[in-house]
Amino acid sequence: MRKTVSSDPCPPYAYEKDPSAIYRQSFSTVRAEADLSHLPQDLHPVAIRLIHACGMTDLPRDLAWSDGVTAAALDAFAKGAAVFCDVEMVAHGIIGSRLPEGTDVRCTLNDDAVPGLAAKLGTTRSAAAVELWRSRLEGAVVAIGNAPTALFHLLELIAAGGPKPAFILGFPVGFVGAAESKDALIANPFGIPFLAVRGRRGGSAMAAAAVNALAAGLPEEK
Amino acid sequence: MRKTVSSDPCPPYAYEKDPSAIYRQSFSTVRAEADLSHLPQDLHPVAIRLIHACGMTDLPRDLAWSDGVTAAALDAFAKGAAVFCDVEMVAHGIIGSRLPEGTDVRCTLNDDAVPGLAAKLGTTRSAAAVELWRSRLEGAVVAIGNAPTALFHLLELIAAGGPKPAFILGFPVGFVGAAESKDALIANPFGIPFLAVRGRRGGSAMAAAAVNALAAGLPEEK
Repeated sequence: MRKTVSSDPCPPYAYEKDPSAIYRQSFSTVRAEADLSHLPQDLHPVAIRLIHACGMTDLPRDLAWSDGVTAAALDAFAKGAAVFCDVEMVAHGIIGSRLPEGTDVRCTLNDDAVPGLAAKLGTTRSAAAVELWRSRLEGAVVAIGNAPTALFHLLELIAAGGPKPAFILGFPVGFVGAAESKDALIANPFGIPFLAVRGRRGGSAMAAAAVNALAAGLPEEK
Repeated sequence: MRKTVSSDPCPPYAYEKDPSAIYRQSFSTVRAEADLSHLPQDLHPVAIRLIHACGMTDLPRDLAWSDGVTAAALDAFAKGAAVFCDVEMVAHGIIGSRLPEGTDVRCTLNDDAVPGLAAKLGTTRSAAAVELWRSRLEGAVVAIGNAPTALFHLLELIAAGGPKPAFILGFPVGFVGAAESKDALIANPFGIPFLAVRGRRGGSAMAAAAVNALAAGLPEEK
């Protein structure tokens, strides 16, 4: 049942109400408009999902990745890796049904210990919250969708010999440290696989979309 | 204490860790780079907060608003209006401490009644979830950060004589209906105040940032 799209923005409104048709039309538009030719084939579904989440078809030009990231993701999720997020918005954008049953998706930002820890370490709450990931960080999935200081602190923790996550999704957003923290992730000398968007753009929706796409592929794309 | 910013993306990392300094530098960059001259003065703090949330200084060119929106917002929040969000990500991006104590921030998308209601109404879960706002929608705050169908359904509900929210924040994102639903909000013949971003851009972070900015002004901006 194909709806006629109204060009008149007044009621009665004509718009697509079928979720499958919405997904189909959306991904079809993304595929028609976005240039993915510089990306490895296994990242196309992820890039499409990222564009879908932000509405910007020029996003792929800013993507940076390590070649092993999709394989690392499949392996980590298959092993039941926990998913650590810097903010609740990322955790709430992750679709639980895409992850293996029982996967722990965790944000520690609002833990009672965080304000004291931030004061003690002389850093932000977002960075201090990363300290609470330590005991389960080895082999875990990390999705940073907001705070540059969380990503920097994570890299410092690893540089100091701390546990290594299976891979890192780097999507801090904004004007102070966001681009720099992602450049540091991209240049990480620890061999940790990553996917990131260079520059100021980023955000919780992209970070969550990357988790969703890497966890289970894109069934609606196949 | 001014940190030296490292141009080397390798450890040890030099970056700003002081939350106040991060906010200050961030808003200062936004103010230096963004053109807000076409916006009314009372929307400048909101526009700055929106840019801060998405990292894109060209956002103001796509903003659309009704003149009464900041006054409507102050009035609604002062009266203890509930805040209805289309997705959990928006609800979790709203900073509770900016709202009057006891403000109810509500997302009904995951309510048990929603899948059945969506099937019955022949629409998306996002649109069906709006039906559950009815009893408290009159005078409420609405923040849509994801689903065009939620915004269209809300406008239909109002067109049919349903309760009117105090104002609507329109930030659906994406390729199918997002731009059109916001055009419909902007053209709404019901006299409902609004703030929206035209086109495909939008998202939960912007919707939440708009609530945060309109609820309490921007203390760190003053």
